[in-house]
Amino acid sequence: MSNAKVLPLVDPVDGQVDAPCCPPVTERPMTALEAETAARMFKALGDPVRLRLFSAVASHEGGEACVCDISDVGVSQPTVSHHLKKLKEAGLLTSERRGTWVYYRVEPSVLAAMGRLLVGSSAAA
Amino acid sequence: MSNAKVLPLVDPVDGQVDAPCCPPVTERPMTALEAETAARMFKALGDPVRLRLFSAVASHEGGEACVCDISDVGVSQPTVSHHLKKLKEAGLLTSERRGTWVYYRVEPSVLAAMGRLLVGSSAAA
Repeated sequence: MSNAKVLPLVDPVDGQVDAPCCPPVTERPMTALEAETAARMFKALGDPVRLRLFSAVASHEGGEACVCDISDVGVSQPTVSHHLKKLKEAGLLTSERRGTWVYYRVEPSVLAAMGRLLVGSSAAA
Repeated sequence: MSNAKVLPLVDPVDGQVDAPCCPPVTERPMTALEAETAARMFKALGDPVRLRLFSAVASHEGGEACVCDISDVGVSQPTVSHHLKKLKEAGLLTSERRGTWVYYRVEPSVLAAMGRLLVGSSAAA
């Protein structure tokens, strides 16, 4: 089993994207290392509140949002911040502080890599 | 907020697929109900062993596999069966008993719907 091709989707050091992580699920069985990487991202989206926040950031004007923009999901602002942190740790969001607020942005190539993993090369467009 | 369009990806009664569940995450914020449905599927894939089993089924010859085909992920057969059951409950696999074995199959339209959710309409092909 070769692990040479197994790269994390997001480099934990500099946040740079090393997509693609994994082959389409229909292509061949995943290795243990590939599954670790991909499962971490799927798990981050496996919570309804996190998924709503993720779609709120992804669909927000300009492709980015601060906590102040997306606090209408029925949980407190600290809880929103906690979930955004989890999404960031999973490599699904990047963040940048500007003045009072931290702005979150979805990394399009990570979305594309996750989509490609599920549906094959047609999702890479 | 209209929930009229919010359908489960897989009808829990007859296993028929009612895709699509949810709009692409980049289109608009998900409703609570949409997020519940989609998060359940992402959560099912949020475990490395389950994800390996899922890719083992998805990539197996003929698009289906029994426990006997995919037991090389380093866990016991009862554990494999447990994880396959979780994937089935989440609507990601369907199953059919034939003789001694239960055969599992990935529902392609569910994969396509999940991919479309992440990367938009290009994944629906």
